[in-house]
Amino acid sequence: MHCPYQKLMAYLNENYLKLQAGYLFPEIARRVREFCDANPEATKRLIRCGIGDVTEPLPRAAIEAMKRAVEELGHRETFRGYGPEQGYEFLRSTIALRDYRDRKIDIADDEIFISDGSKCDCGYILDILGDQNKVAVADPVYPVYVDTNVMAGHSGAAKKDGSYEGIVYLPCSAENNFVPEPPTQHVDLIYLCFPNNPTGAVASGEQLASWVEYAREHEALLLFDAAYEAYISQPEIPHSIFEIPGARECAVELRTFSKTGGFTGVRCGFTVMSKTLLARTESGKKLPLHPLWHRRWSTKANSVSYPVQRGAEALYASEGRKQVRTLIDHYMGNAKILCDACEKINMQVFGGINAPYIWVKAPAGLTSWQIFDRMLSEINVVVTPGSGFGAQGEGYFRISAFNSRENAEEVARRLENFGS
Amino acid sequence: MHCPYQKLMAYLNENYLKLQAGYLFPEIARRVREFCDANPEATKRLIRCGIGDVTEPLPRAAIEAMKRAVEELGHRETFRGYGPEQGYEFLRSTIALRDYRDRKIDIADDEIFISDGSKCDCGYILDILGDQNKVAVADPVYPVYVDTNVMAGHSGAAKKDGSYEGIVYLPCSAENNFVPEPPTQHVDLIYLCFPNNPTGAVASGEQLASWVEYAREHEALLLFDAAYEAYISQPEIPHSIFEIPGARECAVELRTFSKTGGFTGVRCGFTVMSKTLLARTESGKKLPLHPLWHRRWSTKANSVSYPVQRGAEALYASEGRKQVRTLIDHYMGNAKILCDACEKINMQVFGGINAPYIWVKAPAGLTSWQIFDRMLSEINVVVTPGSGFGAQGEGYFRISAFNSRENAEEVARRLENFGS
Repeated sequence: MHCPYQKLMAYLNENYLKLQAGYLFPEIARRVREFCDANPEATKRLIRCGIGDVTEPLPRAAIEAMKRAVEELGHRETFRGYGPEQGYEFLRSTIALRDYRDRKIDIADDEIFISDGSKCDCGYILDILGDQNKVAVADPVYPVYVDTNVMAGHSGAAKKDGSYEGIVYLPCSAENNFVPEPPTQHVDLIYLCFPNNPTGAVASGEQLASWVEYAREHEALLLFDAAYEAYISQPEIPHSIFEIPGARECAVELRTFSKTGGFTGVRCGFTVMSKTLLARTESGKKLPLHPLWHRRWSTKANSVSYPVQRGAEALYASEGRKQVRTLIDHYMGNAKILCDACEKINMQVFGGINAPYIWVKAPAGLTSWQIFDRMLSEINVVVTPGSGFGAQGEGYFRISAFNSRENAEEVARRLENFGS
Repeated sequence: MHCPYQKLMAYLNENYLKLQAGYLFPEIARRVREFCDANPEATKRLIRCGIGDVTEPLPRAAIEAMKRAVEELGHRETFRGYGPEQGYEFLRSTIALRDYRDRKIDIADDEIFISDGSKCDCGYILDILGDQNKVAVADPVYPVYVDTNVMAGHSGAAKKDGSYEGIVYLPCSAENNFVPEPPTQHVDLIYLCFPNNPTGAVASGEQLASWVEYAREHEALLLFDAAYEAYISQPEIPHSIFEIPGARECAVELRTFSKTGGFTGVRCGFTVMSKTLLARTESGKKLPLHPLWHRRWSTKANSVSYPVQRGAEALYASEGRKQVRTLIDHYMGNAKILCDACEKINMQVFGGINAPYIWVKAPAGLTSWQIFDRMLSEINVVVTPGSGFGAQGEGYFRISAFNSRENAEEVARRLENFGS
């Protein structure tokens, strides 16, 4: 049948077609599923140290706060419908006070924007930025930074090693302790994540200051992902980019309750968007981004579930803070056990001190997927192949410390016999 | 100080600068606040029939399900972290079965994608569509359809009447019963909302069939917003675009629990993306949108809070269904009272039979904002000015039936004396 409009069909976003086959974690899930189907026995022994998902129950303070909030919605007098699109004042002010002003960092309540998680914010933030920006990421890198930019058309085609044309990759290796230096070329938008996922590396105040200096000199924008700040154990390491003078003029910070309160399935995070952060129009006019970000939320969302916001708020009260501390200590106890176990068999270990991730050099020249497959089949432990995070991650793997103590200890025991 | 990189500052998304000053509801809120500040007495008498926000408590079934789910997260054995990015199977399958297959509509479980609400989905869906698409909306229209397209660069500048260059507006008026006819020109993407917000109009099966015919002939995509389908009282009116043969090949449906279970503050909705829906690349290749939509969720989100998904599921069980029915009957009882009251003072009334919105012609040639201001100051009732929904809405206002019975009756009483 002839159709005169054949050529007029609705267009899809072709940038999606540039994306590499599997987002890393679905690909891991697929391989694990395949292995389990073929080895039903081993399935029972399987321990997952792959995806960075928490395992321990939510803090009791969050549970109780959420249940109370749900019950409020069951009564006319306390019912709430649409909340403020940028998040409830009670949560924004608590965050600004506890995470920032209490730590002598100048952040106003209305510079906090509540979201359904940092992963989501990584995509949302591109809504308000121009497509002309030159983007830089670390390598290895959390894949979401890259993939959201590919989807938005900020890259060319994928190359053989999984990287994309048009994106600037900042190599991280054992030589620079997995902290990239500012590039010599100009870029507009730089993703930084400290404590780092996947390497567990942290940046010193000096290193962050050199980034702020670069950003101010190039009038670039830093997207600072501080999802793991609560895991920092060394007191000299900054928790926020806003500890660095000048950062209010060049940085956006992303944070989440996923890895503090265990909110990976509850969904809540936030961005810090200072009112003094500017960006430019094509004609060179400089305008604050804050009103655009505010508008983005007003038009495109109705913020996060009310009970969830109450749950997040509870993490800041006295009981909640203690319970979060206990959770983090638990996971960091695992990290120590796993680090020690890897070192015992002479693997080279990074991270694990200020982050729940341990970044390990695969022995004997194995590739990342080779060590992944071997650990899966020989000791039934799921890790994350380093090459999934970028070309520079090849030859490494990531172990997550998010697990029960029992599992962490069992993984440590199994590692002792691994490869021997 | 001279800076050599002055011109290289990060770019913002200039499309945001085209947006008209106030998103409608913030503007209403501002005027109400101003009025209340100036008239503290009247504040106590104020009744809000403006924003389409529910007022009655959540169904008990949803409350109990959410509290149970929250408690599950408090125990190691029942704890859940990241869920499937497209939503939990338990909810996707319940929706596909109850809302579709039970009604003889062919929709598979994995064609349901859970989201944090229809407003959000309106923005998200543009992620996977090409920027080349010609967009058509009804006039009057829910502003989010337009504003999300403006933000994505799918329009030119704003015109004086608030409409945008480059967007095709399909006029709705008393003459066509507020149901637009397919345009004579070609468009790629058409937003349809039935039962309609703001007019309360519904489309018959024949009218929807003519849209499906247009879409199939032009290979256009229908974005069908069925947020208010549960309010349909006339049995012959379709609840879903998928009741129309051929719609699987040309339509995406948006639904929400906001107006059924009262989830405006709880946040949960879904899209139906059929696997047989295609769109094209620039070179004319036709590809299914389903994998792109799946990938969008995998990369950019971690789905909706687990307790919220359990709450939504509970709305489909026997008790939940009854409680939702009671809520809807309550609001539609209000709608009848408000319709009758308007008719009693000889106002011309539309909607209110299959929708919780009543669309009223302002008397005596008043503009929408004039009647808004008069109702606010004279009878202390907040409505929504029709012109806020588009040029064709000028001279109309919307009354929302989302209220307590007491308030609806009081508004009806006050209307009796209005303008007399």
